[in-house]
This record gives sequence, structure tokens and C-alpha cells, in this order.
Amino acid sequence: MSTIAEKFARLSTDHAPGQEVRQSAGGLDALLRGEALKGTPVDFSHGDVNPSAFAPTPGSLEEFVAGFKRGGEQAYTEYRGGAELRERVAGHLATFTGRALSGADELIITPGTQSALFLAIAATVNAGDKVAIVRPDYFANRKLVEFSGGEVVPVSMNYLDHTDRAGLDLNQLEEAFKAGVKTFLFSNPNNPAGVIYSKQEIEQIAALANRYGATVIVDQLYSRLLYSGSSYTHLRASAINADNVVTIMGPSKTESLSGYRLGVAFGPKVLIDRMEKLQAIVSLRAPGYCQAVLRTWFEEPAGWMQERIAQHQAIRDDLLKVFRTVDGLAVRAPEAGSYLFPRLPAMSLSQHDFVRVLRQQASVTVTPGTEFSPHATDSVRLNFSQNHAAAVQAVERMVQLIQRYRA
Amino acid sequence: MSTIAEKFARLSTDHAPGQEVRQSAGGLDALLRGEALKGTPVDFSHGDVNPSAFAPTPGSLEEFVAGFKRGGEQAYTEYRGGAELRERVAGHLATFTGRALSGADELIITPGTQSALFLAIAATVNAGDKVAIVRPDYFANRKLVEFSGGEVVPVSMNYLDHTDRAGLDLNQLEEAFKAGVKTFLFSNPNNPAGVIYSKQEIEQIAALANRYGATVIVDQLYSRLLYSGSSYTHLRASAINADNVVTIMGPSKTESLSGYRLGVAFGPKVLIDRMEKLQAIVSLRAPGYCQAVLRTWFEEPAGWMQERIAQHQAIRDDLLKVFRTVDGLAVRAPEAGSYLFPRLPAMSLSQHDFVRVLRQQASVTVTPGTEFSPHATDSVRLNFSQNHAAAVQAVERMVQLIQRYRA
Repeated sequence: MSTIAEKFARLSTDHAPGQEVRQSAGGLDALLRGEALKGTPVDFSHGDVNPSAFAPTPGSLEEFVAGFKRGGEQAYTEYRGGAELRERVAGHLATFTGRALSGADELIITPGTQSALFLAIAATVNAGDKVAIVRPDYFANRKLVEFSGGEVVPVSMNYLDHTDRAGLDLNQLEEAFKAGVKTFLFSNPNNPAGVIYSKQEIEQIAALANRYGATVIVDQLYSRLLYSGSSYTHLRASAINADNVVTIMGPSKTESLSGYRLGVAFGPKVLIDRMEKLQAIVSLRAPGYCQAVLRTWFEEPAGWMQERIAQHQAIRDDLLKVFRTVDGLAVRAPEAGSYLFPRLPAMSLSQHDFVRVLRQQASVTVTPGTEFSPHATDSVRLNFSQNHAAAVQAVERMVQLIQRYRA
Repeated sequence: MSTIAEKFARLSTDHAPGQEVRQSAGGLDALLRGEALKGTPVDFSHGDVNPSAFAPTPGSLEEFVAGFKRGGEQAYTEYRGGAELRERVAGHLATFTGRALSGADELIITPGTQSALFLAIAATVNAGDKVAIVRPDYFANRKLVEFSGGEVVPVSMNYLDHTDRAGLDLNQLEEAFKAGVKTFLFSNPNNPAGVIYSKQEIEQIAALANRYGATVIVDQLYSRLLYSGSSYTHLRASAINADNVVTIMGPSKTESLSGYRLGVAFGPKVLIDRMEKLQAIVSLRAPGYCQAVLRTWFEEPAGWMQERIAQHQAIRDDLLKVFRTVDGLAVRAPEAGSYLFPRLPAMSLSQHDFVRVLRQQASVTVTPGTEFSPHATDSVRLNFSQNHAAAVQAVERMVQLIQRYRA
């Protein structure tokens, strides 16, 4: 068994999105070539929720203030969240995902989707259990499994080789189940690649889960931000046994409500009950007053979501045009969400050094691909939920530096 | 090793404060005697933050709104909390506790003190480690240790036998350290008994921690709400090795800011670093906009805190008067905080049944003592941070039912 120091060494956050401020700039000067490039700094490590980019859903602050004014009943909800609010949200999620949902028993409100992921993994994974996760996928997935004492069994997704499906290696997934995996965790649309699992892929995941009696935790954080021509299949509405699927969503991304820390998980009563018990000792509940903001969820003003999607699609298209001028760079057009995950051409600097150079010489922050897969040593992730013009100019500067530092 | 179902069975929340709504009233009718007692319902399981009782610190909502308007920088802080805010809060905590504190390295802002406790335990306790906790003490402490795979080593506190000290059995504590305990977790003032550890007790805890190289996690959530005549000793300002103490505080109680979910932990850099790594996968960060509310902490309007303490002291004194009319009931006057923990006379009903009867016949909610110690089968906890008149009348009804149902 590892010591607690070893356990935490595996949870390093030094290169995680948003933590760049804690990195030192030491030793970089010797690597620099040429002049710095001027332009508006853009932090692609997360979305920009300022009014110049993508502000929170209209009315969110008003709902928070109304919640504050309701006083104690809003401050002290059940650990799993206010009962009336759970019913309301469950109704929207049933419609959205295409399967009935009980707000009383099958839904928990959490302080952000990160908490929902943590609780779902902790509620299903015991020390020594094998857990399948996709490569590449959300950077915290591996850490969540390892913190729970689970063993990661990676499953490849070859997103660059396909346009009609995510590219999950279903044979590898079946091998993983055969080898004893009882939990499979994946994001759909995929973070970082922005690709959607096809109907056929989802059906095969469901069939495998049923065959091997495995629990599937699906992180659908970006499932509302679908670009034109994309179609989305909800795992929970597939042929999967309802006891075997936990779905995670939240309003932090498309809706830009991250500053309130809100997420939900929904699935079988037995797992939601466990998650509530754990939430009671980890954080008690999602912030009471913030919970009130979920009253705006799926109730945005008419046309607002469509416009938000169109704005993201326009940014996506412009950034893809800029990236595709680079010889040897490979990038798949995301079908949903606001991530781009280009594979860079061969570079003369290591990935981490190039990321640091980009920050210093171009005021552009991106997340190293190795946060998402140990094999993604040549890729970086950009969250393009940013001011449109600033994002295009930032990617133009990035392309200049790719050319400057390529091998 | 236990199964995951067994692991979660030990985390039951059915009788935890605030969860009463999930209990069924089944089977109670056969136990009832006499008529229900009319009066304003009072939920003593937690404080009342409504304007008719103890409203949040003045200006809290305004700081939240200002934080929202700052936008992205407030929504996306470092995982450990905004840097400038940490410096500001560290300054106040250094003054309050009487020892220097670095906001850069030694402090983390968490989503509530519950999170701070979870992170502190998880950062210090590995599977199989022995952890000393006090009986009685905060109900989640045992569960936190068990969830981390630690083994609880109880240490008794005989609070009813003393008035000049908490009554910790220091011999038991030393025996625990001798038996291999490396972490000691306790609340001061004690939750549920409201008693303060004397200077001598704190000094002996410090000496034992130094001698045995143990980490002490001290939950000081109520340390600002001190009644006249009480004096408080901060463990971190004692002779304890600074590497061996983590202090936890927050503005959820005296300041009534629970609806924002804010807490802090402060201690050695190595443990705060671990806690941040874990927070990154458990909840990312304390809600960004809510963090701004910590700008009001230790900066309340002149005289506000003194008045709030005086109001609580007046309620305490009135409730004690009512309880002390009951033959065979034992209660120690709390020296800090807003908890009363009376030991009831012998009753004709089990503790859980009496608690349910009290709720049904008197509209009074209290928390069973067994949440705090398996031996506290004859005690109940009341959080008397309530409307003064309603609290007195509720305890009068409670006393009527104690008389009605006593053995």
C-alpha cells in the first residue's frame, strides 16, 4: 500500500486548467526565440464568463437574490438539494434526455459537476476495483479513480480517424469488462476532443454494460451545446438497464454559471442515496442560495440557447480555419461543446515548454494534452468559449509560434 | 475488506441534523399520549438565519453581487481560493488566533467547513491509520475517519463533571497516541456540549502532539461566539509544532452565512497543498462568487458581533432556566457557541422515538445525542441560534413532553 504522500503525489494539479498562476516561469529565457507577440491575453484553459464573451444566463443573479431573501429554507435544504427544485429540474431533464426521472429519489444537486463526478465514482468504486476510462478524457477522471483506490483500465478513442462517431475502441472496452471492470466513466461529448458518441456506439456501450453488469457514469456536461448537423444519443434513454447508468450534467459551461458551483447527478436510487450520504460529510450540500439559480436552467429566454450555440459555432469555424493553415497539424471539428484539441506538428520544444512559451510570448493559455491522456504529448486543449475576435487573434499568434518553434 | 455497500451503510444520515424530512412518521401513533402542544415550530437541528432570528452579516449580499459583477476573475479563482482574498483573510486569522499566517501558502478556502474537515482528514489519514476523536463531538467526525479507511480511537470528554475545563480524558488521549494514533480531531468549543478546552488542556494536547509527532485538526467553527467570563486558547498559538496543527473555521455559524457555503483551513504548507489537490477533484473550488462574501468576515460593523453574542447569551440563559426546572435533567452551561446538550432523565421511550414524538406533538426538532457519541443515548442537542421567544416557548413544550414521557 502506498503512503499518503505517494497517494497525493499522483494528484498533481500543477498543469491543471486554471492553476497556471502557481507555475514558475523559471528557466524559460534560454528557450525563447524572437519577440513577444502583442495582443489581448486569452486564457483558453476555461471559458470566459465576462459580458464581453459569454455572460451567465439572464436572470441568474435575480434568482440568487430571491433565494437569499427566502432565508433559512433556501440556506438549509436537504443534503441532496431542495425538494421542490429537484422536482422542477428532474422534469426538464426527463424531457431533455427522453426518459422519466424522479426528482424525489433519482436526482442529487451537487456543488458543481466536479462534485457529482467525485460522488459517483466514490459511490461505485471500492479499493482495488477496476475502472475503465477513455483516453483522452477529462483530466480529473484518472485522479478520481486513483483517489478511490481503484485501478484505471484505459480504453482508446481514436477521434482523429473518424467523423461519423467518436472512435471508441469497443473491443478494448469489452476486453476491459471481461477483465473485471465494473465501472466505466466517460464524457459525451468528449472533453477534450469535442466529439459525440454515435447512436451505434452508445447502443454498444449499453449492451456491454448490460452483459457484464457494469455501472456506466456518463458526464454530459456539454450535451446542450450541439452544433448544426450533430445528433446526440442519451445513454440513459438507450436499452441500458436503468440501474446501471448515472448521468452527470450542470449549468457551468454552456450557461456560464460556473461561479455558482452547481451540478446534478441522476440515476438509480441506491446510488443517489450513497452519493447523498457522502455529500453530507464532504460538503453538506450545494450552496443553498446558489441552488435557487437552477430555476433558470432549461428555462432560458426564448432563442437564447440557439443564439449562444450559433455564436460558439462561428468561433469554432473561424479557429478551425486558422489551425488548418498549419502543415502537419491535425484537428477534428468538434460536434458539440467548446473544446478544440489540435495535434500539433513535431515541435522543437517539449509540450510543457511550448505551453509556457505560448503563455509568455503570446499571452495565450492552453492546457497540455497530457492532462487528458499520457499519449497526448503533441496535443493541447483550447476552451473557445471566449470573445470571438480575441480568440481568433490569439489562435493566430499561437499559429505564429507553432511555426517559429516547430522542429 | 468491506464491500462498498457496507462502507456506505456506516455513513447513514437518517438522523443527521436537517434530514428529518426524509424520516417516515410510521408507527408513531401507538406511542403517543395526550394532546399535541400548540406553538411556533422550532427546528433546533440548525440555526435560524431568517431576519426574525439571526440574519446573515450585514453587507453579505452586496459583496456577493459585487463579486458576480467582477465576472470571470471571481468565478474562476485558484482551486484554493482567490489570492488577494486569502491574504486578507489570513491577516484577520493571524490577529484572531495570535500567530502569523501566510495567505499564499498556509490557507485554503473551501465550500463550507464540512469540506475543510473532509479535506483535512483525507490529507492526513491513510487506510488503516488510527485517528483519535472525542466523545461526544461533531457527528461527521467518525464518518470522515471511516470513509478514509481510518480506525476510530475514541477519547472521552466528561463535560458534565467540570466547569473550569472541557473535561477531556488526557490519559486516554496519551494512551491513544501510544497505541499509534497519528491524527487527533476535535472541536473547540465542543459541538455538541458548547464547552471550551482550558489553557491547560490545550497545552497538554500540544505537548502530547509534539511528543508523539501527531497531527491535530481543530475545528474552531464557534470560536468567535464566546460568552462573558470565557477565555479561549488557540491551539496553533500554543507550544505545538506548527507543522502538526490544522485549524478549521468559517462564517457559517455566528455570522449566519451558511447559505453561501464558505470555510477555511489553515496549517502547514504540505497539508494545505494536499488539500488543494484533493479539492481540485472533489469540488474544484469554493463557489467563486460566494468567496467574495468572505470580504465581510472579521470586518463586521462596529458592535455587531458583541450584540450578536449578547443576544445568544440571553437565549442561553433563558433556556437553561427552563431546563433546570426538570428533576433529573443535567445540563452544563455552554461557554461558547449556540449548542445545548441536555442529558434527559430516564424516559419511557427510546431516544429516537422521543425525538420523533417531540417533532410530532410539539413541533420541536432536536438532534439525537447518539449522532455525537454512541453513549449519549440520553442526551439531545439543540442549536439555540433561534428567535428568542419562539425558542423559549419551544423548550417549555419540550419540558412538558419530558415530564409526560419520563419513566
